[in-house]
Amino acid sequence: MQKNAITPSREENYPEWYQQVVGQADLAEMSPVRGCMVIKPWGYAIWERIQKILDERLKATGHVNAYFPLLIPLSQLEKEAKHIEGFAKECAVVTHHRLIADGKGGLKPDGELEEPYVIRPTSETIIGTMYSKWVQSYRDLPILINQWANVMRWEMRTRLFLRTSEFLWQEGHTAHANALEAKEETLTILDLYQKFVEDILAMPVIKGEKTESERFPGAVNTYCIEAMMQDGKALQAGTSHFLGQNFAKGYDIQFSDQQGQLQHAWTTSWGVSTRLIGGLIMTHSDDNGLVLPPSIAPYQIVILPIYRQEEEREKVLAFCKMLQEQLQKQLWQDERLRVYIDQRDLQGGEKNWQWIKKGVPLRLEIGPRDLAQNVISFYRRDQEVKTRINLASDEFMAQASDILDEMQVHLFKTAQDFRSQHTQEINSFEEFQAYFQNQKDTLSGFALCYALDTPEIEARLKDLKVSARCIPLGVEHSEGRCIFTGEKTAQKIIFARSY
Amino acid sequence: MQKNAITPSREENYPEWYQQVVGQADLAEMSPVRGCMVIKPWGYAIWERIQKILDERLKATGHVNAYFPLLIPLSQLEKEAKHIEGFAKECAVVTHHRLIADGKGGLKPDGELEEPYVIRPTSETIIGTMYSKWVQSYRDLPILINQWANVMRWEMRTRLFLRTSEFLWQEGHTAHANALEAKEETLTILDLYQKFVEDILAMPVIKGEKTESERFPGAVNTYCIEAMMQDGKALQAGTSHFLGQNFAKGYDIQFSDQQGQLQHAWTTSWGVSTRLIGGLIMTHSDDNGLVLPPSIAPYQIVILPIYRQEEEREKVLAFCKMLQEQLQKQLWQDERLRVYIDQRDLQGGEKNWQWIKKGVPLRLEIGPRDLAQNVISFYRRDQEVKTRINLASDEFMAQASDILDEMQVHLFKTAQDFRSQHTQEINSFEEFQAYFQNQKDTLSGFALCYALDTPEIEARLKDLKVSARCIPLGVEHSEGRCIFTGEKTAQKIIFARSY
Repeated sequence: MQKNAITPSREENYPEWYQQVVGQADLAEMSPVRGCMVIKPWGYAIWERIQKILDERLKATGHVNAYFPLLIPLSQLEKEAKHIEGFAKECAVVTHHRLIADGKGGLKPDGELEEPYVIRPTSETIIGTMYSKWVQSYRDLPILINQWANVMRWEMRTRLFLRTSEFLWQEGHTAHANALEAKEETLTILDLYQKFVEDILAMPVIKGEKTESERFPGAVNTYCIEAMMQDGKALQAGTSHFLGQNFAKGYDIQFSDQQGQLQHAWTTSWGVSTRLIGGLIMTHSDDNGLVLPPSIAPYQIVILPIYRQEEEREKVLAFCKMLQEQLQKQLWQDERLRVYIDQRDLQGGEKNWQWIKKGVPLRLEIGPRDLAQNVISFYRRDQEVKTRINLASDEFMAQASDILDEMQVHLFKTAQDFRSQHTQEINSFEEFQAYFQNQKDTLSGFALCYALDTPEIEARLKDLKVSARCIPLGVEHSEGRCIFTGEKTAQKIIFARSY
Repeated sequence: MQKNAITPSREENYPEWYQQVVGQADLAEMSPVRGCMVIKPWGYAIWERIQKILDERLKATGHVNAYFPLLIPLSQLEKEAKHIEGFAKECAVVTHHRLIADGKGGLKPDGELEEPYVIRPTSETIIGTMYSKWVQSYRDLPILINQWANVMRWEMRTRLFLRTSEFLWQEGHTAHANALEAKEETLTILDLYQKFVEDILAMPVIKGEKTESERFPGAVNTYCIEAMMQDGKALQAGTSHFLGQNFAKGYDIQFSDQQGQLQHAWTTSWGVSTRLIGGLIMTHSDDNGLVLPPSIAPYQIVILPIYRQEEEREKVLAFCKMLQEQLQKQLWQDERLRVYIDQRDLQGGEKNWQWIKKGVPLRLEIGPRDLAQNVISFYRRDQEVKTRINLASDEFMAQASDILDEMQVHLFKTAQDFRSQHTQEINSFEEFQAYFQNQKDTLSGFALCYALDTPEIEARLKDLKVSARCIPLGVEHSEGRCIFTGEKTAQKIIFARSY
């Protein structure tokens, strides 16, 4: 094991390894606020990359951004019964609007509100209320609005990025004049999410529909993209909901159609969150720390100048700056390369290890000897830590983009292979039990089975800590028998443990 | 008066004119949540432009973004006495973490928290708490972090963009190893704000220091940029605070210096908010609605195709698209031109007025006749609504950037002239009273006077509804006498009514 590696390793203790990777990459840490994290600059820079690219893609498909209030009046929240049922247990409630002296040298809440407010756990309710004012005629439809915001769900068991009381996300909320268009929107977004997560985060995902018990509260259909982590568990990486007319009825979103008839609109909602960063970490990172695909890395290349005397320093730094300028002129995936020179006065090995743990794709070590020989020595984060590659300076320049391409593809392929190796077709309940009970010896992953979609079946799986992840889309099966009930079905479901 | 103009006009009723401009440009509206607004797509697009440009400039000066929790534990808030005093009266307080049935078919708060939380009115306290963990040695300094976030101050009298309970902003929080560096940071940011607001929003501002009674709770010095609106009132457009060691002491941000001595850090904080949009509106808009400077306009050019028959339609649209493509290739102020074709099936005059009210700098009307003659007919938003300009197509292409330059400069110059015309040197308290009591006949604006900076003086001005806006920076005066006390002073203060 590397002297500077993460302890424990993935094999030794996966959850603790995850915490260590996050901490040593300086991505985030827990705050004094229950269940809420601080996203530190390196972690936030990853979120900014996600925001930038996803935002461009959402705008290219006709969506615009807007901003709705953080607080939701209790009376608004109550209008969609299933929805409120789903969120009531985990709402932060605002009841007062000022603080006064408590007579003991401290402060206490004062100015009780006539009606309490809830901090948005999601915004269907407040946005539905506004849409009902904005929509009169079919001409006002579709509305294709997205919001980048913080939301809050009072979670009891929290983990950095994966499950926190407050998190950052985007939530799209659209309204349409007919069911078909709304369904198309739901699936268009699902495709957009898949492409984004696979192309940019290099995380292979399966598109599917959620079973009834995993559906979003108030939705008609919930679609999702599910990824596999390196411990075989599933991570829901994004969801897209077809809400039918449920929210339009609850919030009175009505329009007169081309025939002058009053109709309820058809709505959708969809979102991805800072949870994606958790998935990204667990998909690619290794026992040395974070590994970032070049498309999402805040810096793709870090240059580490190496020198002893002051005289060397100037020459080396001048060369590094020239190198940085030349690289930054290169376009890769329609953006300028992101290159950073680490000039801190730190011991070289320490610096190197900091960037390994931060997951930067390419590390360039530039010393006087490299200058003299006009050679670039570099390390790829997807290879062994000590595998040093030397290329003539102009060769490196010519190949930099190709190397990044190769890394992006390699990381995706590795994750895809891992998923294939840990996905198993399962034909009986006995086999199913054995597959998931075996966890400690061999890694269980996704179980693909003929199965019916009923809450009763899923209730039976709680002991195994397994849940239905999704009914994969676009896969045709001949008929088989449900492994739980023996009934005939042509439907397969993916089951797994999950985050 | 134009048939479609805003009623009332600025002269008739300035506050109501403002509301109408905001509403008719579709920028924002009030929500069912007390004092909170919905920022609609056109308004949010302006905020996104502000974010993009300001963010680039903050990063170029070495700042990085991060994200801290929305909630602040009451006990953390209490640690800086003056600070909490300043915000206690307007805090949204979270006291419960779930909802249960109230037995009357509704819901009520449940799960009382051991310690209440406050929704951040600003984040010095929670960020200070984190910095105390992060800072050990002088090597950990400076910390130059910015956050884009929502904040909440429970306001009793609210106005769209200018004063809302929830608003969006950026808040910078930096920590330094010595006072000098922290002071420099405070003023560097003040300069950055001035340049941004003047260059991009075309709003002339005066840099100054706040008097004691207008200082940020807990700050040693508060600096600001003050703008003048078209009703002569001042608008504080941004602030930058030198916090000295006050927060470092309250939150225990200590480091060992190069000599190994333990010291408290020196901190700063600074912010601008969605309030800037209110200032932007009130600086440039006219009796026809919003006027946007080209640098901040989400679209700089809107193309309105005009046709009668289907056959014309195709030709006209093809030409418009070609025009759009060519224009979008042009760089202006280092960015591609932003050009939109409005293809909606709406009557031409109505479309045209919508874009007038949305403040788009250039409107191009393209019909079959223009095509035939290869002429571009356009209107500038900073000129009379009916002033149509015709240019040969290639001439327009060659001149588009110059026209935008000219508009940007023209809007700034007009605002600057307005401010000059409504700024008066005042030499006695009688003159001062007359200046501000005269409001109804002649517009009063900024009064520049020799004055001491004491809370007692400012208390005397409350009847006039006037306050000290700032002590302008970088202006040398000979000595004079305070117009309120007669005492000798070399200090001049700007007084005004304000938002």
